[in-house]
Amino acid sequence: MLFLLHRPLQEARSMPPTSAPSPRARVRRAPSRADYDRATIDAILDEGLVAHLGFAVDGQPYVIPTLHARSGDVVYVHGSAASRMVRTLAAGTPACLTVTLLDGLVLARSAFHHSMNYRSVVVLGQARLVEGDAERRGALRLFTERLVPGRWDEVRPPTRQELKGTQVLALALDEASAKVRRGGPVDEDEDHALDVWAGVVPLALERGTPEPDERLRPGIAASAAVDGWAATADRRAA
Amino acid sequence: MLFLLHRPLQEARSMPPTSAPSPRARVRRAPSRADYDRATIDAILDEGLVAHLGFAVDGQPYVIPTLHARSGDVVYVHGSAASRMVRTLAAGTPACLTVTLLDGLVLARSAFHHSMNYRSVVVLGQARLVEGDAERRGALRLFTERLVPGRWDEVRPPTRQELKGTQVLALALDEASAKVRRGGPVDEDEDHALDVWAGVVPLALERGTPEPDERLRPGIAASAAVDGWAATADRRAA
Repeated sequence: MLFLLHRPLQEARSMPPTSAPSPRARVRRAPSRADYDRATIDAILDEGLVAHLGFAVDGQPYVIPTLHARSGDVVYVHGSAASRMVRTLAAGTPACLTVTLLDGLVLARSAFHHSMNYRSVVVLGQARLVEGDAERRGALRLFTERLVPGRWDEVRPPTRQELKGTQVLALALDEASAKVRRGGPVDEDEDHALDVWAGVVPLALERGTPEPDERLRPGIAASAAVDGWAATADRRAA
Repeated sequence: MLFLLHRPLQEARSMPPTSAPSPRARVRRAPSRADYDRATIDAILDEGLVAHLGFAVDGQPYVIPTLHARSGDVVYVHGSAASRMVRTLAAGTPACLTVTLLDGLVLARSAFHHSMNYRSVVVLGQARLVEGDAERRGALRLFTERLVPGRWDEVRPPTRQELKGTQVLALALDEASAKVRRGGPVDEDEDHALDVWAGVVPLALERGTPEPDERLRPGIAASAAVDGWAATADRRAA
């Protein structure tokens, strides 16, 4: 059973860390699937729509789904200024941010070799509370723009009060690793003689047709940003 | 900005926990979206194809994507018997297992009220190493069956050696909470007068057409389990 995916923290192997940014960020299970290349890491972070953010309080870990947005060498998350999560992370509590994309079910000839195709990134580190107004506003803009490019300029910008209630945290990509599994099942040689269908069922997060809000005023045209983005997505999917 | 999703650990509110199974499992941000009903929790766990498992070692949390499978009141995960994660969790280290389903991008008239539609479950607790052969084999069967029902009986079962190398961990659902956001944007009253398109872009993890393994022997028909499951999925999607 190889369903356990990105495993950076596992039993030490005799193989030395190659280009892992730190010993603890090194992928130890199935290290051949590891990738410390920033282009790979950035592409996964930029495609994923949700991150899972881990931090411990009194020894109990919490894993919270949240939107993230990368800008250069940092990945931003945000939350209510009143939240314990924001205060905990801003105090320098170690954190782990993980983004996972599912690409396929891998159906092997044996139960044991069933697997998933996926791309994942694990970022370790301590978050920094973003204090400067310019960086904070830039991050908030990114959260919107990464979902629908062009959207920020269509909508009402945040008021001072809204900005005041929102905190942004930045996690540096110094200790990041990617792990990728692609391709078909890897069966035992002798299992290829079995009369068992094997292959991959592709998986992808698809967007549907935009649904107008029920309180949308008559005569308001569909958003150029949403339309343009939908058309781009269609071309990508085609 | 309301992009921070399932937030069970947040500033204490004056509102008492209603039906949360424990104070620390109580959803504190946007508690109106919380749901402690087991039917809701089970449905989310059963639909999600990946869980994010959190545990801390020497104060550093790790969040690892992994397949999970629910059976009654427990959720199983598994890993190599040699892995540090398995040994860490088997030793009783507190864990958190989170499953998140993305259902839509919520595009509001203001940047601040952009959000996501989602369903998530957070399970807190200590994992138990599954020792009995029957329970362990049953769990391994579940990992395969939950992806493609009927698949287990089509494939070569695990050998004694394969079983020996795989450990299964069980996490009880005693401290679980669900959080769900549905529907359109919730804008400020005055923002409804703006000339801004608002609505929801649905999201769903879709499966594509099964792709046969390149080493598939000629004459092997597509798997009944894969075919049947694909047809069911088509009907669900239609």
